[in-house]
Amino acid sequence: MSAFPEVSKIKYEGPQSDNPLAFRWYNPDEVVAGKTMKEHLRFTVVYWHTFRGTGADPFGGATMCRPWDDGTESVENACNRARVAFEFFEKLDAPFYAFHDRDVAPEGASLAETNANFDAVAKVLKEQQDATGVKLLWGTANMFSNPRFMHGAATTCNVDVFTYAAAQVKKALEVTNELGGENYVFWGGREGYQCLYNTDMKRELDHLGRFFQMAVDYAKEIGFKGQFLIEPKPKEPTKHQYDSDAAACLNFLRAYDLTDHFKLNIETNHATLAGHEMMHELEYAGMQGMLGSIDANTGDLLLGWDTDQFATNYYLTTQIMLVLLKYGLSPGGVNFDAKVRRESFEPIDLFYAHIGSMDAFARGLKIAAKMIDEGGLSKLVDQRYSSWDGDLGKKIEAGQVSFTDLEKIMLEKGEVEANASGRQELMENIFNRYLDLA
Amino acid sequence: MSAFPEVSKIKYEGPQSDNPLAFRWYNPDEVVAGKTMKEHLRFTVVYWHTFRGTGADPFGGATMCRPWDDGTESVENACNRARVAFEFFEKLDAPFYAFHDRDVAPEGASLAETNANFDAVAKVLKEQQDATGVKLLWGTANMFSNPRFMHGAATTCNVDVFTYAAAQVKKALEVTNELGGENYVFWGGREGYQCLYNTDMKRELDHLGRFFQMAVDYAKEIGFKGQFLIEPKPKEPTKHQYDSDAAACLNFLRAYDLTDHFKLNIETNHATLAGHEMMHELEYAGMQGMLGSIDANTGDLLLGWDTDQFATNYYLTTQIMLVLLKYGLSPGGVNFDAKVRRESFEPIDLFYAHIGSMDAFARGLKIAAKMIDEGGLSKLVDQRYSSWDGDLGKKIEAGQVSFTDLEKIMLEKGEVEANASGRQELMENIFNRYLDLA
Amino acid sequence: MSAFPEVSKIKYEGPQSDNPLAFRWYNPDEVVAGKTMKEHLRFTVVYWHTFRGTGADPFGGATMCRPWDDGTESVENACNRARVAFEFFEKLDAPFYAFHDRDVAPEGASLAETNANFDAVAKVLKEQQDATGVKLLWGTANMFSNPRFMHGAATTCNVDVFTYAAAQVKKALEVTNELGGENYVFWGGREGYQCLYNTDMKRELDHLGRFFQMAVDYAKEIGFKGQFLIEPKPKEPTKHQYDSDAAACLNFLRAYDLTDHFKLNIETNHATLAGHEMMHELEYAGMQGMLGSIDANTGDLLLGWDTDQFATNYYLTTQIMLVLLKYGLSPGGVNFDAKVRRESFEPIDLFYAHIGSMDAFARGLKIAAKMIDEGGLSKLVDQRYSSWDGDLGKKIEAGQVSFTDLEKIMLEKGEVEANASGRQELMENIFNRYLDLA
Amino acid sequence: MSAFPEVSKIKYEGPQSDNPLAFRWYNPDEVVAGKTMKEHLRFTVVYWHTFRGTGADPFGGATMCRPWDDGTESVENACNRARVAFEFFEKLDAPFYAFHDRDVAPEGASLAETNANFDAVAKVLKEQQDATGVKLLWGTANMFSNPRFMHGAATTCNVDVFTYAAAQVKKALEVTNELGGENYVFWGGREGYQCLYNTDMKRELDHLGRFFQMAVDYAKEIGFKGQFLIEPKPKEPTKHQYDSDAAACLNFLRAYDLTDHFKLNIETNHATLAGHEMMHELEYAGMQGMLGSIDANTGDLLLGWDTDQFATNYYLTTQIMLVLLKYGLSPGGVNFDAKVRRESFEPIDLFYAHIGSMDAFARGLKIAAKMIDEGGLSKLVDQRYSSWDGDLGKKIEAGQVSFTDLEKIMLEKGEVEANASGRQELMENIFNRYLDLA
Ligand SMILES: [Co+2]
Ligand SMILES: [Co+2]
Ligand SMILES: [Co+2]
Ligand SMILES: [Co+2]
Ligand SMILES: [Co+2]
Ligand SMILES: [Co+2]
Ligand SMILES: [Co+2]
Ligand SMILES: [Co+2]
Repeated sequence: MSAFPEVSKIKYEGPQSDNPLAFRWYNPDEVVAGKTMKEHLRFTVVYWHTFRGTGADPFGGATMCRPWDDGTESVENACNRARVAFEFFEKLDAPFYAFHDRDVAPEGASLAETNANFDAVAKVLKEQQDATGVKLLWGTANMFSNPRFMHGAATTCNVDVFTYAAAQVKKALEVTNELGGENYVFWGGREGYQCLYNTDMKRELDHLGRFFQMAVDYAKEIGFKGQFLIEPKPKEPTKHQYDSDAAACLNFLRAYDLTDHFKLNIETNHATLAGHEMMHELEYAGMQGMLGSIDANTGDLLLGWDTDQFATNYYLTTQIMLVLLKYGLSPGGVNFDAKVRRESFEPIDLFYAHIGSMDAFARGLKIAAKMIDEGGLSKLVDQRYSSWDGDLGKKIEAGQVSFTDLEKIMLEKGEVEANASGRQELMENIFNRYLDLA
Repeated sequence: MSAFPEVSKIKYEGPQSDNPLAFRWYNPDEVVAGKTMKEHLRFTVVYWHTFRGTGADPFGGATMCRPWDDGTESVENACNRARVAFEFFEKLDAPFYAFHDRDVAPEGASLAETNANFDAVAKVLKEQQDATGVKLLWGTANMFSNPRFMHGAATTCNVDVFTYAAAQVKKALEVTNELGGENYVFWGGREGYQCLYNTDMKRELDHLGRFFQMAVDYAKEIGFKGQFLIEPKPKEPTKHQYDSDAAACLNFLRAYDLTDHFKLNIETNHATLAGHEMMHELEYAGMQGMLGSIDANTGDLLLGWDTDQFATNYYLTTQIMLVLLKYGLSPGGVNFDAKVRRESFEPIDLFYAHIGSMDAFARGLKIAAKMIDEGGLSKLVDQRYSSWDGDLGKKIEAGQVSFTDLEKIMLEKGEVEANASGRQELMENIFNRYLDLA
Repeated sequence: MSAFPEVSKIKYEGPQSDNPLAFRWYNPDEVVAGKTMKEHLRFTVVYWHTFRGTGADPFGGATMCRPWDDGTESVENACNRARVAFEFFEKLDAPFYAFHDRDVAPEGASLAETNANFDAVAKVLKEQQDATGVKLLWGTANMFSNPRFMHGAATTCNVDVFTYAAAQVKKALEVTNELGGENYVFWGGREGYQCLYNTDMKRELDHLGRFFQMAVDYAKEIGFKGQFLIEPKPKEPTKHQYDSDAAACLNFLRAYDLTDHFKLNIETNHATLAGHEMMHELEYAGMQGMLGSIDANTGDLLLGWDTDQFATNYYLTTQIMLVLLKYGLSPGGVNFDAKVRRESFEPIDLFYAHIGSMDAFARGLKIAAKMIDEGGLSKLVDQRYSSWDGDLGKKIEAGQVSFTDLEKIMLEKGEVEANASGRQELMENIFNRYLDLA
Repeated sequence: MSAFPEVSKIKYEGPQSDNPLAFRWYNPDEVVAGKTMKEHLRFTVVYWHTFRGTGADPFGGATMCRPWDDGTESVENACNRARVAFEFFEKLDAPFYAFHDRDVAPEGASLAETNANFDAVAKVLKEQQDATGVKLLWGTANMFSNPRFMHGAATTCNVDVFTYAAAQVKKALEVTNELGGENYVFWGGREGYQCLYNTDMKRELDHLGRFFQMAVDYAKEIGFKGQFLIEPKPKEPTKHQYDSDAAACLNFLRAYDLTDHFKLNIETNHATLAGHEMMHELEYAGMQGMLGSIDANTGDLLLGWDTDQFATNYYLTTQIMLVLLKYGLSPGGVNFDAKVRRESFEPIDLFYAHIGSMDAFARGLKIAAKMIDEGGLSKLVDQRYSSWDGDLGKKIEAGQVSFTDLEKIMLEKGEVEANASGRQELMENIFNRYLDLA
C-alpha cells in the first residue's frame, strides 16, 4: 500500500514547468562537466529529519502528519516506516539515504534488546536497498537523544556511558558495513560542555581521541572500508562542542594522529553558527585534503540556532558546487540534513522541500560548471596573484630565500610595486551574470 | 618636564580607598599563591592604544587630548612621546610595555629611512628602560595600517609586499632583541580575505607558513631567545582572518610544523568575536601547552566589533586568573591591549582606566588563588569524574581495551550506572561566594 | 508527605555561610532603602520551568527527576503537583508564584473539559494559597505549545484558532481573578511569523490589537483590577515575534490605543536576544511609565537562543536593582522565569538555583541602594548634564526657542564650549568599588 | 577636463552583454508595472561614500585613488570635486544624488565661515543640477564626524553642542530647500550612548523631540515642502542609537507627536544589525504609512558592523522591490549608501559597483512585478487567510464580538478546524521559479 498514492515518480520537466512536483533543473542523466548530475550530486535523504522529525520545538509539541506511522516504538512500526521511506526515496529519485541507529530502530530494555531491534530493521533496510537500488551513504549512532548521554558520550564524566557508547558505535559500524554504507559519520552533539567550571576539557578530549582510535581499529577488524567523517558544529545542544568547526576538528585529528582515517562532513548551518561562510569551511577542509561530504541545508543568519532549512538560495548552492567541483565529493554526498518547517506538516511538503533544494543544487552545479569552464572568476584570480609566478615568488615558495635576502631587495627598491584593485564588486557582478545565463 | 604633573606614583591604599588614583587591590609586593602580585600579573602597557590612539572611529575624527604630542610625524616628537610613555609606565607602576614598530617611530620615505627612524627612537627606549627598570614584554611589526598591506602582508597577492613585510619583521626582531624583549608577537590583521571569489586561500597560507619559518630561522641567526606568539582574531579589519581562534592557529602551526617555536597570545575580545569564552580559549591553548600570553581587555558582547575596553568585570578576571594560575604566564604578561573610550579623551582617563583594570585583575588573582587553594570548584570536579579513576577508566585511558571488550561489559550490564547532576548552579553560587569573601 | 523531606525552610545565615541551603544575602525582613527586602524584591517562582520543565531540548529527551510526579496528564497528578509546588514555595520563602493555564492543569478532550480541569486544579491552588500565604503574582494562558497554535493565537491565519484563544484567555482571566492574581501576562510566543512570503503582517497585527481590546473589556466586565503585561521577545520559537522588544511593544500599544491598560514584563534573556542590555530595556520602559515587572533570568550572550538561566551575576542584578529602585516594581515582581540546566536534574538543584539567584538579587539590591544613597554614579551624571541647568538649557527644554534663536547664539560664539570627558572608565571603577564594599 | 575619460555614458546592452561598463538589466525607459524603470527606482548616488570615502578603516589608512581630489580642505577643491561628481552621476545615468553638508563643503574656523563655504559649494551644485538635470533626493547635516559631537548632537550633555546642531540643521535645511531637495534626512549616528552609567536617557530623548519639533517649525517657516526622514540604525558608532529600528523610531515619533512630519529611510545593513530582515523593516514601516525611502546597500551577516556594501543579491533586491511596489517610494529613492571595498580603490571600481547594483535592483523590479502580476505568492497568501473572510472573521475585524461571544462558539465546537500547511518551502520554490523566468 502506498504512503504517497497521489505522487508519482518525480520527473524532470525543465525550467518553465510550473508543476510543483517536477524537477525544473535536476535532470539526473544530463552531463555537466564530464559527469552526469546524478554522479556529481549524490543526493541523499536523511532518515532523522524526514522520517522521524515531529515538528516539536522548545515551545511546542509535535505537528507532523505522518499517516503511515502508528506512533508506537514497536519494531513493526519501524519496519513499516522503513518501507515508506524507500517509497519516498524512489519517488524522489534519490540515489542515497543515511540514518542513525536510533532513528531506524527503537531502543529496547537493554543493550542486547536494542541491538536485536536494530538487526530486525536492518534486515528490512537491506531488502529495500536491494529492491530499489537506493544505497546507504552513511550510518551513524545517535549518542545525544537518550538522557544517559546528558554529560556526553565519548567525553562523558561517567565511564559507564563511554562504555555504552563504544558498544553502540561497534554495532552501528557492523550494520553500516553490512548495508554497504560508504561512510560512517560522527556528530558529537553532546561532546562538549555546558559550563567550564565543572569540566575537565583535557581529560575529555583525551577520551575522545581514544574512542576514535578504537573505532578505527574496529573498522579494520571487520573490514569496513568506508570513510570516517566528523561533522563540525560549534554549539547547540551544548554551549560548546569540541568539534566546533573545520579548524577545531583538524587540529584535534592532527593532535591525536587520526588524519589518515577521518575527513569532514561540512554543514552550512553549522558553518554559519561558527561564524564562517559555508564556502570557507569547504575550501578550508578541501585545501587540506580533508573534505569528505556535505550536509546540504541552510540556516537563518538572523537566528542563533540550527534551523536546518532546505537550501534554495542559488548563491549558496553555486558557491558550494564551485568548491565541490574543485575537490570532488565521492564517497561523500549532498546530504539533505534539513527539515520541513514545523508549519509545513503535510506529507506533500516533504516532496516540495526536497524537490526545490535538489533543483537549487542542480542549477548551482550548472552555473558553477560554466563559471569554471569559462574562467569567469579564475582568470581574474590568476592575474591577481601573477606577481608570485615570477622568479622571486618561485624562490620564496620553494624556501630558497631568507629575511636577509628579502631585506636586501627591499632596501634597494625602497617601496613596493603598486597594488592593484581587488575588484570584489566586479567579481560579484560577474557571478550574477553567470547566475543569469547558466 | 612632566606630562602628568598632577599625578604622583600610584600607590596601594586598600579596598576602602575612594581615591581614584590609588590601587585598591593591586599591591605589587603582596604574596599570593607563593609569588608576589607583580610576578604573577606582569602588567604591560601597550603603546598602540595608550600613546597612539586618537579616538577616531569609522564615523568620526580624533578626540584625544595629548598635550605632549605635537601631532607631527617627526622623529623628535616620537622620542619625546617615548619619554612621556615611560613617565606613565613608572607612575602607573607597570613593569612592562609593548610596542609595534610603526607606533614608536614614524615611517620614512624609504625602507632605509624608516629603519633609521626606528633605530633613533629605539635608542631613547633603551635609555628609558635602563633609567626606569621598565622592561619590554614584546615587540611586533605593524603590517596592517599602511595601504601597501591592503591585500595582506605575508599573505598578500603582491610578492613585493611579502618582501617588504619580511624586511620589516627582520628589523623589528633585531630591535626587539636589542631591547631585551621577552616575546615577539604576530597579529595578522590583514592576513585573511575580504571575499573568497578573488582569493587563493591555500597559496596564501603556504606563504604564511614560509614567512613564519623564515622568522624562526632569523631569530636563531641573531640569537633572539624570546617566545614567538600568534594572536588569534577571527575578523576585523578583514572579513576572515586566518588566525581566527586558538584552534585555527594551532591547526596551522601543526600543519606547517611550527609548534616548537610559537605559542598563542589570547585576547578576550578576540575570543568572544570568535564565539568563545575567554576562559575557553585560555584553557584550550593551555591544555595543549600553547598558552603564551594574554591581551587583557574586554569586549561588548552586544556589539560585533573589537571594542578593546579595559576589563573591570570580576567574573572575567577571576576566570582568567584561574587558568593562568594553572598553566603559568611567563614569559608572557597581562597586556593591556585596551583603549579608553573615545569620549574619555583627557590624559587622566588613561590612569583611571589602567588602575581600574589592574585592580580588577589583582582582585581576580586573589579570588582565584583562594578558590584553588580551598578546592572550591575542583573538589566537585574531581568527584564528577571519579568513575574514571577506577580500573575500567584507567584501562581505557591507557589504551588497553577495544570496542569488543567494552561491548561485552555493557551487554552484561544492559544499562549504564545512573548519571549524577552536573551541579552547574551550585558551582555558580560557590563562585559568587568566593567573589564575596576573597 | 513531603516531596523535599531533606530540606527545611531556607534561612538567612549571612555572607560567610557555606551552607548551600541557606541564604547568604537574602534576609527578608532586613530593611534596605526604606523597605524590607521582601517588599522590594517580591520573588516569584514560576510553575512553567520549575514544575513542568522536563530537561528536553531539541536534541534530547527529558532528564528531570521529579519523584512526586507520576508522569500522567491526570487532574489528580496535577493537584498533587500543585501541593508539592507550594511546599517548595514555602521552604524557599518565596512570597509569590506565577502560572500558565496549561502548566497547572491538563488539557481535556474539549474546551469544556479543559476548563473543568483548570477549575479543579484552581481549587487546590486556592486552598494552598490560603494555607501558606503565598500569593499569585500573575496568571497567563499558554497559547504556544498546542499544535493548534502553530500559526499563532491572536495572529493566526485560522479564525477558529483566534476564537479558541479568546475563550482560553477569558477563562485564564477568570481564574487569575479568583485567585487574586495581581497581574495578567501575555507572552506571544507564536504571535509572529516564520516567513514573510506567506504572512499578512498588517492583518495579523490588527487582529492582535482587537484581541487585547477584548481582554481589556472583559477584565472590566469581571472586575479584574490586575495589571496587564506584555512580555517582549524578538524570536524563538518563531523567526520574528511582533512583541520584539520594549520599543516594538510600546509602538504597538500606542498605535492601538492600549497604553492605559498595559505595561511591560521585561526579561533579561529576551532583552539580549533583541540586542539590548537588560538595563536599557528597563530604563526605556521605565522612563515612559511602562515598566511593570521583570523576568529575572539571564542568558548566554555567546548563544543565540533563550537559555533562561538563573541569574547570579552581581553586575546584572545590581544594574537591574538600580532601575527598579528608581521606578518601583509593584504590582510586578522579580519573577524567576529560569530553568535549571538539563544536567542539573535532581530536585535539590531547584533549591540551589533559586537560592543563588535570590542571594544575587538581594546583594544587587544592597549595592544599588548604597550607590543611590551616596550618589556614587549620580553625582557624576548630574555634573555631566549641568550645562542644561542654565538659562539656555531651561528655555530649550521649555520649548521657548527656535532654530533662528539658536543660530544667532552660535554665530556669535563661532564654536562650542569644550566638551568634558565622559568618564566611563572611572564610573566602571566606582561601580566595582560599590560591589566590593556594599 | 574629464575625470573619467575612459568611461562613456553607461548604456543598456541586455543580459547577454559581458561589457562590465554596460547595464544588463537597468533600461531606464523600459516600462514595468505601468511605469518606467527610472520612475520606479529613482537611483541616487551618495556623496558621502562615493566622493568622500577614503578607504580608511579602524586598522588602516586611506587607500582610495581619486586623481581629481587634491586632498586639501579648500573650497576650490570642494567645488572641483562637485563637478567631478556630476560627471559621474551623468555617465552613470543616475537621476538623483544626496549629500551631507560637511561632505560637499569644508568646515571653516567658525560657524559663519563654515556656512559661507557651504554656500559657495551649493552654488556649484545648483549650476551642475541645472546643467545636467540630476536632482537632489535629499540633504542632511553631518553631526557625527566632528569631535564636538562626541556626546551626541541633539542628545548631547553639552547645551552648546545642541545649539550648534540646531544652527547647522537650519542651514542644511535652507540649502536643501534652495537646491530643490525632495527630502531631508536625519541619521543620528551619535544620538545614543556608550554607557548607561553616565547617561540620562529620558532627558536626552526629550531634547531630541524638541529638536525635531524645531526642525518642523523652521521648515514651515521657509516653505520647505520636502519629506523629513529618520534613518534607523541600532549601533555603531555608539553602543546604542536611539533610532534603533523602525519600531523604536515610530514609538518615538508617536510619543513626541511627530508622525505627521516624518517617515523612515530604511537601510538594509541597519535592519540586519538590528536583527531584522530588510523586507521586515520595509513592510513594518509601510503598513503604518511610514515608509519614506531606502538606503540600498547590503551587509555581511557574519560581520557585526555596517559594511555598507553594494547590493547585488537578487533575493534581496526582489524582496525589496516586492514591498516598494506595494507602498510606493516617491518622494524617496533607491539611495546607494554603499561604499566600494577598501581594496577596490581605483575610480573605475565606482562604476562597476554602481552598475552591478543598479542592474540587481532592475532585475529585482522585473521579478517582483511579474510575481505580483501573476499572483505567484499572493494567491497562496490569500488562500491562507481565507477563513477570516467569512462572517465570524468579518465581525471580529469590525470589533463586533466579545470574549464571551467567542467562548460560546468554541465551547460548542470543542476544538478548532484543522490548520493547513504554511507551505513555506513551496513558496520558496515559487520564488526561485520567478527568479529563473523573469
Ligand atoms: Co544542523
Ligand atoms: Co548535519
Ligand atoms: Co582587539
Ligand atoms: Co590584541
Ligand atoms: Co525567556
Ligand atoms: Co519570560
Ligand atoms: Co549603513
Ligand atoms: Co544609510
